[in-house]
Amino acid sequence: MEPFISNIDFEVPKQKNNIKQYKNFNKIFKKTGILETFKIKDNNSVIDLALKICNRNLKNLKNCDTLIFVTQTPTYLLPSCSSIVQGKLGLKQEILTFDINMGCSGFVHGLSIASSLIKSKVSKNVALICADTYSHYFTKNNKNKFIFSDAASLTLIKRRKKKSIGPFLFGTDGNNFDKIIISKNKNNNLEFNMSGSDVYLFTLNKIPTLVKNYLKIIKNKNFDFYIFHQASRLILESLRNKLDINKKKFVIDLKYGNTTSSSIPIALKNMIDNKKIKKNQKILVCGFGVGLAWGITSIEI
Amino acid sequence: MEPFISNIDFEVPKQKNNIKQYKNFNKIFKKTGILETFKIKDNNSVIDLALKICNRNLKNLKNCDTLIFVTQTPTYLLPSCSSIVQGKLGLKQEILTFDINMGCSGFVHGLSIASSLIKSKVSKNVALICADTYSHYFTKNNKNKFIFSDAASLTLIKRRKKKSIGPFLFGTDGNNFDKIIISKNKNNNLEFNMSGSDVYLFTLNKIPTLVKNYLKIIKNKNFDFYIFHQASRLILESLRNKLDINKKKFVIDLKYGNTTSSSIPIALKNMIDNKKIKKNQKILVCGFGVGLAWGITSIEI
Repeated sequence: MEPFISNIDFEVPKQKNNIKQYKNFNKIFKKTGILETFKIKDNNSVIDLALKICNRNLKNLKNCDTLIFVTQTPTYLLPSCSSIVQGKLGLKQEILTFDINMGCSGFVHGLSIASSLIKSKVSKNVALICADTYSHYFTKNNKNKFIFSDAASLTLIKRRKKKSIGPFLFGTDGNNFDKIIISKNKNNNLEFNMSGSDVYLFTLNKIPTLVKNYLKIIKNKNFDFYIFHQASRLILESLRNKLDINKKKFVIDLKYGNTTSSSIPIALKNMIDNKKIKKNQKILVCGFGVGLAWGITSIEI
Repeated sequence: MEPFISNIDFEVPKQKNNIKQYKNFNKIFKKTGILETFKIKDNNSVIDLALKICNRNLKNLKNCDTLIFVTQTPTYLLPSCSSIVQGKLGLKQEILTFDINMGCSGFVHGLSIASSLIKSKVSKNVALICADTYSHYFTKNNKNKFIFSDAASLTLIKRRKKKSIGPFLFGTDGNNFDKIIISKNKNNNLEFNMSGSDVYLFTLNKIPTLVKNYLKIIKNKNFDFYIFHQASRLILESLRNKLDINKKKFVIDLKYGNTTSSSIPIALKNMIDNKKIKKNQKILVCGFGVGLAWGITSIEI
């Protein structure tokens, strides 16, 4: 049996960062394409955000035998968010739960693990939650609050006869691990930092080659849509130019900001809801960022 | 092709907790069976410990296309330990890396994911690192320092024709998530806490039923050895009694303390080195703890 994506849903918090009040707003917006970002309340956690979507999809979740929670901002160091979600939702105890620590490529990584668990018959119905709350690690003057939004997404992966996910290619450049990092600042508080120019150069250096290599190894190269991690308008448009992808096929969806591992499922969900993606259409998806790490695959919805 | 375990190695820090100086040492030792525990230097992290084993096994690691790092005490919230290890070891960039947040059942969880990645042809050679440094989260009077040791293990999983791993069964009881937890204490510092009596009751309630269910679904029930998570002598002997397992087949190896997700690979490695396990012998392995979560499988070395 082959894995396929049966449902996608997502959630962003109600609270927004007022980006327009920032003095360099126009200059920043030109680069990012992001009008507003969303932040969770300080006393709420990634689990609260995930539970909102899960409660809307409880009937489907009750059938899941596997719950994967992709996050870099867990509520506790231990136990895992996935086990807490199992308890809060009252899911059956005969369930495989674990958390994966991955960033902006986390959806592709999680999808690969979910697919492998299904193909190898360990799992039948997998719930893949991607959720991060970077805002907890932004100090007052941290400019990343104008780029990154807190968000959670839920992707349900089930079985059918027809193949619709894969193959996958992955990579890691750990020598640049410190280019996107949460570490202690001068005041001994944990703070998120990103070297934007280094990440831009890394992306433009790695991802076009990755896409070209991927297109070499797969049979059907006729993609209807290309959904890359929604990092920023500058990064996306630079990638599109370098790869010479048709504008109509290249997805840019920055309505909710850079939502890390949820950016691809959010873009997918919005296209499904807007009836832009039709059944059996082929979509190339590619995540990249924290690690630095990257992953690419193709899917049909 | 089928996954199999080709190598195991492990590392504990040199520094020890002087348990015998504790006034109730004899009372504690009677329960735990643990004479000494090992702790990393305060300024060292789980990655430093993992790199010690990895550098000893570098030739094998250079061939790996997948690196999974199971930890609950990562060096950074982001990026993942696995990506940093890729960089520090100079492994090839065409590698799938990710961290899994799981506790004392983490080896079984990680082995399952590694096996599924191999079976589904995403991976060929997987390096599974399990490593935790709970000692960073023990305050001065935290009694858990007499139970838990910092440790790291490396398990290499490759492909061959003969089946030797699986099937797997998993479970989660997230309603008891707070029975083993790292959370903020009164002084606003992160501290590890365990409700020992609750964990004992959970284990004695869940694990014998799990083992009995597992034995029902598999064909070959003749196990040569039973390796459970090496939690403590009391828990292990209670499980052995309840399941009526022959003493000679039931492994108790608490030389290095409770080493969380490394306790099963450490026990395996010691048995291999001491020539207790022979080729083609069947071993039942079962992990349980943080989550609360559990996992069971069978392997041949």
